[in-house]
This record gives sequence, C-alpha cells and structure tokens, in this order.
Amino acid sequence: MKPVGPIPEGFQTLDAELAVSGQKASTLVAMAGRTPLFAYSRSMISDRVASLREAMPERLRINYAIKANSFPPLLEHVASLVDGLDIASGGELEIVRAAGVSGERMSFAGPGKRDEELEAAISAGVTLNLESENEAHRALAIGEKLGIPPRLAIRVNPDFELKGSGMKMGGGPKPFGVDAERVPALAREIVAGNCEWRGLHIFTGSQALDAGAVIEAQANTLDLAHRITRKAGLELPKLNMGGGFGIPYFHGDTPLDIGRVGSALADRLESLPETLARAELYIELGRYIVGEAGVYLTRIVDRKQSHGETYLITDGGLHHQLAASGNFGTVVRRNYPLAIASRFGAEPHEVANVVGCLCTPLDRLADKAHLPRAEVGDIVAVFCAGAYGASASPSAFLGHGPAAEILV
Amino acid sequence: MKPVGPIPEGFQTLDAELAVSGQKASTLVAMAGRTPLFAYSRSMISDRVASLREAMPERLRINYAIKANSFPPLLEHVASLVDGLDIASGGELEIVRAAGVSGERMSFAGPGKRDEELEAAISAGVTLNLESENEAHRALAIGEKLGIPPRLAIRVNPDFELKGSGMKMGGGPKPFGVDAERVPALAREIVAGNCEWRGLHIFTGSQALDAGAVIEAQANTLDLAHRITRKAGLELPKLNMGGGFGIPYFHGDTPLDIGRVGSALADRLESLPETLARAELYIELGRYIVGEAGVYLTRIVDRKQSHGETYLITDGGLHHQLAASGNFGTVVRRNYPLAIASRFGAEPHEVANVVGCLCTPLDRLADKAHLPRAEVGDIVAVFCAGAYGASASPSAFLGHGPAAEILV
Repeated sequence: MKPVGPIPEGFQTLDAELAVSGQKASTLVAMAGRTPLFAYSRSMISDRVASLREAMPERLRINYAIKANSFPPLLEHVASLVDGLDIASGGELEIVRAAGVSGERMSFAGPGKRDEELEAAISAGVTLNLESENEAHRALAIGEKLGIPPRLAIRVNPDFELKGSGMKMGGGPKPFGVDAERVPALAREIVAGNCEWRGLHIFTGSQALDAGAVIEAQANTLDLAHRITRKAGLELPKLNMGGGFGIPYFHGDTPLDIGRVGSALADRLESLPETLARAELYIELGRYIVGEAGVYLTRIVDRKQSHGETYLITDGGLHHQLAASGNFGTVVRRNYPLAIASRFGAEPHEVANVVGCLCTPLDRLADKAHLPRAEVGDIVAVFCAGAYGASASPSAFLGHGPAAEILV
Repeated sequence: MKPVGPIPEGFQTLDAELAVSGQKASTLVAMAGRTPLFAYSRSMISDRVASLREAMPERLRINYAIKANSFPPLLEHVASLVDGLDIASGGELEIVRAAGVSGERMSFAGPGKRDEELEAAISAGVTLNLESENEAHRALAIGEKLGIPPRLAIRVNPDFELKGSGMKMGGGPKPFGVDAERVPALAREIVAGNCEWRGLHIFTGSQALDAGAVIEAQANTLDLAHRITRKAGLELPKLNMGGGFGIPYFHGDTPLDIGRVGSALADRLESLPETLARAELYIELGRYIVGEAGVYLTRIVDRKQSHGETYLITDGGLHHQLAASGNFGTVVRRNYPLAIASRFGAEPHEVANVVGCLCTPLDRLADKAHLPRAEVGDIVAVFCAGAYGASASPSAFLGHGPAAEILV
C-alpha cells in the first residue's frame, strides 16, 4: 500500500459524493456533459486570496502567474481578486486581454521573448521583466520604433536560492534573468534610455512548504534589491519578490504557514532601507492561488485484476494530468491526493492501482492506494488539479483530446 | 561537457547547413513561415520501411502505431508503405479515417476504451485488441446492438518481459491485456459468441536496442501464442507480435541490428508449430519507422552568460519536445542528438546550454554541449524528433502554441 496525498480543505460531502462549491461530482459531470473534467471552485479561490490578504502586510500586492491556469472563466475571477497578472508569452498576453484586463496590470517574464512578443507587450503597456542585456537593447529599439517608451524592469538571477523549493530559480548559472552583479550597470543604462523604469524582479524558486525557507528567501530578496539599487544609484519604483509558496501534494506534506511568512515580512517592511522605502512590493503566485481549488474528475471504464493486483482504469490520464502521473519534473513518483468521488468518505476497502486510458505504463494516477471498492461507472477525483493540470499536459497525445473545464 | 546523442544517418549538409530531403534548414523554415518547426523526411521514412522489409521474413507484416506521429501528410505517406495501422483511441480512429484508410486495416489497443469508442470501431470494421473480460463482454453486446459481428483479438499480458526495453509492457501485474493464463478461457468464450475471431496481441515493451533481447522476446511471444492457442483448442488467424524496436537517442547507444532480428525470426518461422502455421504475423512499430526521420528546428532568440556558462535560448522548448527535455518517463536527463543546423558540420568551439523559451528550469534541450559558436538568429536542430515529439508534448503550456510541421 502507498499513501495518497492530503485532500485539501474546502470540499464537501453531499449524498455520499464529493462536492465542489456545493455541487456534487455527478452534477458537475452532468453540467459539463462528459468526463474527464476539471472543476474549479470559485469560492475556494476567493477564500485563498482573502486569507493571503489577511496574512500578508497590507502594503504587499499580489500578482497571479497565469501559467498555472488560464481557463478564461477562472482567469477572469482571479483577475478580479488580485492586483496584477504575470504572463510568460505573447499567447498569454492575448489570453489575458481577452479576459478584459489591460496591459498596465501585466508583467511579462520569460527567457526567450521574440521581437513580435516584445512589440505586442510594449504596445499594450505591459511591464517587461528583462532577461538579458540583449533583450534590454531589443526592447529599447522596439520602443523607439513604436514611439512608446517601454515599461522595463530587470529580472535578477539572484546569488542565493529558495531552500527546499521544488524548483530552484536562483543560485548559480541560470537561463533566467541577469546575474546580480551585472544588474546595476544595466539598470543605469536602460534608465538613461527612453523608457519607464519599473524596477526589479527576483524569483528564487517555487513550491516551498517551509515557512522558514520562504522567510529567508524574502529577506535575501529585499537585501539584494537594496544592494542593487544602492549600487545603481537609482530609485526603485517596484519590486516583484517572486513567489515560491507551495501546496501539499504528497503524504507527509504540511501546508505552508503563511501567517508566519506574513508576520516576518511585516517586521521587515517596518525597517526597510531608504532605497526600498517607496517601492511597490509584489509577490507573484500561481499554484498557491488556484492549485488546491481544482479537482480532476474521471470515470472508471474498467476494473480488472492482473497477477493479484486490482486496476481501476479511467477515461482520463496523463494527457490531462502529466504532473500527477509523475512525469513532469519528478524523480520518484508519489501519489497525489485521490479519492473515489462517487463514494466520498466511504471506508477504504481494498488496495487498487488507478490508471489512465493511455496505452503506456507511464499513465498512472495512483499506485496501490487504499480506497473504497469502486466499480465501472464510479468517478475518481484527483485533487490539487487547479494548477499545471490542463495547461501543462500533452492533451493531443493518443488522440483523446482535452478535458472539459468548469468553474463553479 | 556532456555528450549529445548520435545524429541519425540520412541528413545532408548543403551550403554549410543541415538539409532534410535535400532542403536546407533555412529553406524549410521559409517554407513553414516560422520556427519552431518539425520537418519530417519522406524518403527517410520510405528507406526505413524498405530496410525493414529487406531484413524481416517476407511473411511478416508491418503495422504502424500512429501514436508515434499522426501528422496527416506523414500518416498518409506511412500508410502507403505499411500493411496496417494501430490506433489507441476513438480520436485516432478519426485521424486515420481522415487519411483515407479503411477500418479493415486498423487494430485498436488501449486499456480504457469507452462504449462510444467501441461502437465507432466496430462500425468501421476495426479489429479490437481486447484488454479485459469486461471489455470483451461490452464489445460483444455493442456488436449485437449494431448487428455487426465485431472483429476481436485478445491482448495478452505476457508472463515475460522485453529485457532492456525503455518501457516494459509485460511480466507481472499490468493494466494492459489479460493475464496469459486467463486468455484461453476468454478466447473460447468470445469465439462462441457472435464475432470474427482475430487472434492475439502480445506487446512486451518498447525502445529496445539489443537484438538479442528482441530475438528472445519474439521467441517467447511465438511460444506463448502457441501455448495459449493449443490450450484454447482454436485456430490462430492473426498474431500481433508487438514492437519494441528502439532507436539510438543517447551517446553510446548503438542502432538495433535488425538484420540479426530478421534472420533469427526467419529461422523460427521455418519451424513453427501447427497452431501458428497459418496465422498472419505482424509487428507493430511506431518510433522505429518515423523517429529518426524527423528533426525539430528552433531559432536562437538570445545568447547570454550566467556565472561563466553560456546559454543559447531558443523559441522552442519542452512544449514541443517534452521527451528531449528529459521530462517524459526519464530518470536521469541525457542530451538528445542536437546540432546548430545553420552551421552544420562546423567545428565545435564552445560549451553551451541550449534551453527553450519557457519560464521553467525544466525547459532544457541540451546541457553543456560542445557546439560551434552560435549567435542570435542561428537555427538549432534537435534530432530523433519524428516520434513522440509534437504529439506527446504539452503544446498549450505557457501559451506559445504548437510548432509548425512539414513533410518534405
């Protein structure tokens, strides 16, 4: 038997079924007309942003990184709750504009921005987080051509990392940003050009659950921003402090203590050096805002035995849930939180493997999980499906096509 | 420095550029109108199938598993060369029909076939490789309802594996097929029903480069088919022996010796037991037919230094090349074969990291590769991109969208 991850708080049980925002799994499937289906809870997202606002200092602004989930109804909802949106491509710029958000509320990071993406972003008034000297020169030249002073910030490759993070984005050679020691010179150069100076972007890592590590990374980030700004001899209008707030996916994971993070940050903000005193301060979160608010519902198509093991075969799989299958940046596969949605809360009765419908041994949703006995027709829920699920999976693989998505 | 994988034979150098089917990389990009771009060589695919025909016994038929690559022009070309096509979903059935191939030439394997997929396949005359007793009963019931005797084969979960294969599909508990010892009873049961009995499907693994391992797996497959057929007391009209032929992706890999495989199989076929004497024999290959015939071309957008390392940042990435990035069923990331297509054959001059444009450290195309010095605007080629590239990557991730594809 292998444990499954912890089921996030905020779901309900109705008539012995899992419910999302008060709607039973079977009702959600009927609303969508089919399985597999991603269902996202509007109220869980609102509650999450409210609890962030509550925990964080009032001065801190909150951005949403749309790469986590850009399903249009969800994006519109999140956009109404947060201060800004972070995009990573010209395609994401289009998605955000279609949701009715203006370029002024967006910033754009990404190591390989093409000229046409820079042009579209500058035209829309998006802040560019510059990833290199070369990109800075291209952005200034495009601004010149368009007759629009571009809004420019510099993404810094920090000289430290977010300890214990799922993905490290700083400390050592990286394709992201400009090495910290070269930033002051570049900042002076672009400020001398025809642009609107928007400050710094420092992203140290993602998916951290240890409040101490986040607190340390934030302190180091503020310190680095101070050192760079002092050395450059400039004002700092804005500092994007990055994100890194993780969610519990696996057995034994515990939630990040955002109260501790917020209180430590509040202390810091009371004694900021003069360089940072008037800067707009942002954090940038994707997964933390939407990850736990989504569930993936997939129907059992077959139930079979092989050499003494039970397999529940679903109509979903890694083409919608690459990360849950253990195939996206994972070394050792562990089970995401998973349950039989149509028998929610029932006592575990057997050990079963839950797999997808793809013809590959990579397509696993749970290994040797302790579950209520489920039959063909039952619905499986995979939790923590609100971020990097639909958007980060190979939906065309084997021709099954994308899952349905709803926000309720 | 880390080595890159071996560049497949069959490409050319023209005016110091990589050429595919006699067309220079720059010409291919101009034809497609953009990068990133998958370019597939018609003649390399034809040559590959011809060399397979040459090496294998004449009696052996060759199927193409379209999951490897179902780009319509490529699929039409491959369909004209092979004997049959293997599909894995109702979606793939539609793709193959759109290429003008009739259902009689198709077989359908996949552990989670839905009723509507069974219905579409039975209506089209597709052979179903049944994955369980339950699926057999559903197929017979749907055939009854439609008034069409379904074409039924049984997929066997073999009691052995393909040694050294990249993915093992047999030996022990598996979600695929019916455990070998239960197959005779199921075969008798479905033959007694109203169906067209199409025999057995035995798939033991994929991506094997060791001829000895393939020879042993084929021998075991024929032996298992014989034992099952004798025990069932039935004729064996058809045996799909699976695939497993690998291609060299990584430094140190050597090509599969198909001459040795074919000659060992020819010896076997001369002394087949009576049970197998009149069976149509198939192998089913995807990657081996198209994998080496494809190249992924992506343009360098930025060239930068970080802490003494050089990064070449391209407009492509893991959203088209998940496997090459090391994030699809890989434990230790190794470099695929890669070259600077616009300086093809030039002497290596520096050690560089080649990355994609996505804002994640997972997006790597080559680590510390020894390459000619490349500048912004140069084109990078990632080889072995003909299979599980475009089709098996999360093209919507970060909003960059799919790559272009051409067959030349």
